[in-house]
Amino acid sequence: MVDSNLAIGVFDSGVGGLTVVRELARALPEEPIVYLGDTARVPYGTKSSATVTRYALACASILQERGIKILVVACNTASAHGLGALRAALDIPVIGVVEPGAHAAAAATRSGRIGVIGTRGTVSSGAYPEAIQRCAAAAKVFAAPCPLFVPLAEEAWLEGPVPLAAAQNYLGPLLENGIDTLVLGCTHYPLLKETIAHVTGPAVTLVDSAEETARTVGQTLDAMGGRCTRTFLPQYRFLVSDDPDSFARVGALFLGRPLDTVEWVDF
Amino acid sequence: MVDSNLAIGVFDSGVGGLTVVRELARALPEEPIVYLGDTARVPYGTKSSATVTRYALACASILQERGIKILVVACNTASAHGLGALRAALDIPVIGVVEPGAHAAAAATRSGRIGVIGTRGTVSSGAYPEAIQRCAAAAKVFAAPCPLFVPLAEEAWLEGPVPLAAAQNYLGPLLENGIDTLVLGCTHYPLLKETIAHVTGPAVTLVDSAEETARTVGQTLDAMGGRCTRTFLPQYRFLVSDDPDSFARVGALFLGRPLDTVEWVDF
Repeated sequence: MVDSNLAIGVFDSGVGGLTVVRELARALPEEPIVYLGDTARVPYGTKSSATVTRYALACASILQERGIKILVVACNTASAHGLGALRAALDIPVIGVVEPGAHAAAAATRSGRIGVIGTRGTVSSGAYPEAIQRCAAAAKVFAAPCPLFVPLAEEAWLEGPVPLAAAQNYLGPLLENGIDTLVLGCTHYPLLKETIAHVTGPAVTLVDSAEETARTVGQTLDAMGGRCTRTFLPQYRFLVSDDPDSFARVGALFLGRPLDTVEWVDF
Repeated sequence: MVDSNLAIGVFDSGVGGLTVVRELARALPEEPIVYLGDTARVPYGTKSSATVTRYALACASILQERGIKILVVACNTASAHGLGALRAALDIPVIGVVEPGAHAAAAATRSGRIGVIGTRGTVSSGAYPEAIQRCAAAAKVFAAPCPLFVPLAEEAWLEGPVPLAAAQNYLGPLLENGIDTLVLGCTHYPLLKETIAHVTGPAVTLVDSAEETARTVGQTLDAMGGRCTRTFLPQYRFLVSDDPDSFARVGALFLGRPLDTVEWVDF
């Protein structure tokens, strides 16, 4: 029997996953959340499947020590590589961001031609094409890694000639394939949404998996009878493996509001 | 009494330090080298002083297990933050890249106006201005972080509009300060040397600390009676904390020749 007053656990390699926390807070305002950003090992997207899976299991273990009823893997790379290992190791539900994003993309496309952008790790895993084709077998999926987008977002360098030139370089080949839908397959990318939209133009629908992920979490909590029953304002806790102060500063940009306290954890 | 046939130990956060190995191999062709690239935790330049120092001590410990007679910290960020802690913890000489780079810059400048580019960690440490002013008290030092240069170099995205726009953005303010010398204060940056030189123009001398570091290592080995006395070709060993294959591939670009074997280490 699940303790429904436990928190939703969320982890990401760094600050990007706070875009998922923002949607969780909007969709499930009564739920307490504990978030872990593995800022000492960020980024995951350039690293091997074995290393990312090892880090994902370590993050899950830290969050379980704090008491959680469900785990949200807010990192696309960790979802792409580590979801199977996490589900095998944990006795609570584990929700990734790839399946919700794929579902939203399949629902949004009219032409059936879908682009996916993500880290090298996410793209090379093939997780998005597989998940999209489970929702829409006839869909054509074109995937491209955009490795510079993570450092650009982490640096908050969101506009101007450098992000624009990078976006043109990465997205040009996808647009030539006639996509009408583009999955932002990395939790950092919504920060670059305006620059990306400027390059794709209005005919391409941008899909950010955060909203759909929050909906999936709500449905799963309902199914397990796990909705929080407390009536007071829920507590949000933030844990990081590197400097808490710089996380609080950059994190506010992602979360869209200030982070009260950020705690350092060693692992 | 030092065992002069032990290897020179070299570490960096990733592949960048191989530019230092290249200069060591050129200056000290008889010396065996064991190199550790902490590719599972790369980059260091965006992380806090405490975390970088912790990682530097762990790297040194792995290399000491292999048997080394001297430690070269081929990472500017780890040199800037961790040199004191490493020297306190180890009973062998520890050579960083900041002091040699500062020395070379002080020797190269005519106007006494020196620019330094590096990671956020290196620049915020103030290590370069301090080291340069120890060599040339009257020097004026202007430092600027160039955080995008590491991912650009790691991606081997060395030319074209994106690196050029990034370089113009970062270097413009330094050039307005009338520098005549620019220290490439990160082992990744020599790969972007052509783009950087295109922006600075021929009146600015670019200083890469790898060559001066190799000279310092040779002088230190001489001073301690530690030169290798074997006459056969020395062994080079490469250790990494993430995938060995991708390191071997990118590493060849930095080292300027193929890497024979790369071994995975867990720490």
